[in-house]
Amino acid sequence: MELLSLNTATTKHWTLAEAVAGCVEAGISGIGLWRDRVAEAGLDRAARLVREAGLTVTSLCRGGFFTGPGSDADNRRAVDEAAALGADTLVLVCGGLPEGSRDLPAARRRVAAGIAALAPYAEAHGVKPAIEPLHPMFCADRAVVSTLGQALDLAEAAGHGTGVVVDTYHVWWDPELETQLARAGAAGLIHAFQVCDWLLPLPADALLGRGHVGDGSIDVPRIAGLVAEAGYGGWTEVEIFNQEIWDTPGAETLRTLTDRHRRHLARGARR
Amino acid sequence: MELLSLNTATTKHWTLAEAVAGCVEAGISGIGLWRDRVAEAGLDRAARLVREAGLTVTSLCRGGFFTGPGSDADNRRAVDEAAALGADTLVLVCGGLPEGSRDLPAARRRVAAGIAALAPYAEAHGVKPAIEPLHPMFCADRAVVSTLGQALDLAEAAGHGTGVVVDTYHVWWDPELETQLARAGAAGLIHAFQVCDWLLPLPADALLGRGHVGDGSIDVPRIAGLVAEAGYGGWTEVEIFNQEIWDTPGAETLRTLTDRHRRHLARGARR
Repeated sequence: MELLSLNTATTKHWTLAEAVAGCVEAGISGIGLWRDRVAEAGLDRAARLVREAGLTVTSLCRGGFFTGPGSDADNRRAVDEAAALGADTLVLVCGGLPEGSRDLPAARRRVAAGIAALAPYAEAHGVKPAIEPLHPMFCADRAVVSTLGQALDLAEAAGHGTGVVVDTYHVWWDPELETQLARAGAAGLIHAFQVCDWLLPLPADALLGRGHVGDGSIDVPRIAGLVAEAGYGGWTEVEIFNQEIWDTPGAETLRTLTDRHRRHLARGARR
Repeated sequence: MELLSLNTATTKHWTLAEAVAGCVEAGISGIGLWRDRVAEAGLDRAARLVREAGLTVTSLCRGGFFTGPGSDADNRRAVDEAAALGADTLVLVCGGLPEGSRDLPAARRRVAAGIAALAPYAEAHGVKPAIEPLHPMFCADRAVVSTLGQALDLAEAAGHGTGVVVDTYHVWWDPELETQLARAGAAGLIHAFQVCDWLLPLPADALLGRGHVGDGSIDVPRIAGLVAEAGYGGWTEVEIFNQEIWDTPGAETLRTLTDRHRRHLARGARR
């Protein structure tokens, strides 16, 4: 499938080797990797597996969590891993409020400082840091970076190839989406594009309310169109956190997302 | 208590008469009313109850839901009720995506048209429409108005006394909060200020994750300070949706919120 990438969070129960084999079988030529599965396989073996399968590593997930302890060293390791895997994009989920703190401006300053410190190291290793704004419902516990505009401000301040990840689940509601996507595209700062849908009602674990493209409230084709108009011609990574999908056999999930890509997102399918 | 108002959603199980009596007993002199409890008591009797108790009606909740059928007539009735109750502010929760639709720009246009149509009617009846931006996690099902900046754009376009409601739960995460509060204050558009806190983890019903000021992730005193700096000198309404608080005897809830107001929000308590 045309520039379709499987983010392996979508097939949570697959090992890295299973995900690689699944992609080859399904004709999906891009893969977004998670560090825990890479570590489990071993970094060298993981790199060899994806290389020998002819897959493009469209992102490594994830670095960031700048508001927690030990993030600087861990983020440099994440850069090293991305370089070893041939992933040119490292996704950064920036971290929420530090334990016991309510000081949001201070947390945001800490994130800015952490990104600025990481960016030159990443550039020196041929890796582009990609700041992912997370939906504002994750501001307290996962990411104090809540809008695309804010992520772009941070990326521009950090420089050294730093850009952003656009994930439909996190940005679809933003009244400034059109403006900020155009800004991001014009500056060449869209490093990755991830898709999934918004399901109602929100599940008990708010992390898991994501669905296949077409099953929820988001006009994903419209956002994909805006991203394309902004000049992004890269991969579309499908990243879905959803217990039911995780409980579905991986091969079936890949058939579904390939089908949805063909119907909603491939060239010619867009309205 | 100094400019403290009980929004009766906080004491969900109280009738209007019980809420009025509870406020008098607790020394709370403002009350924010919900239309269902007003209807249950009867409009004339409700108006008499609050007037005879010497309470100020700080808001009527709520009109809006412009994206659903029949909203125009219902919103005019809400204005009439606000006028009868002596409430000068009618809170507008603007509605989510129409059933089966993913067209967010169209829904937002419909909201703008609905507010513009309502505003002159409200002005003629001495009622100020107050647009409430809701947290983006409610964009699909409750309010396509997701940020303070967006609400202010709508209020300015509608005119005729239209303004906004600032609720800490809905706006605390916004990177533009300082800028937009200053803008709102300078234009005299803050018609109501509501407070509660953000509790983690989000509960199974995402509507109910609100807590007493001081129990969660929001620096409510800081936001109250920004609102005051912006020139707002009105009431602080406590509006909490939380099953545990609803299950607590109302008098105890009023003691808690009075105590929190004194410690965190009353003049001199602010950092």
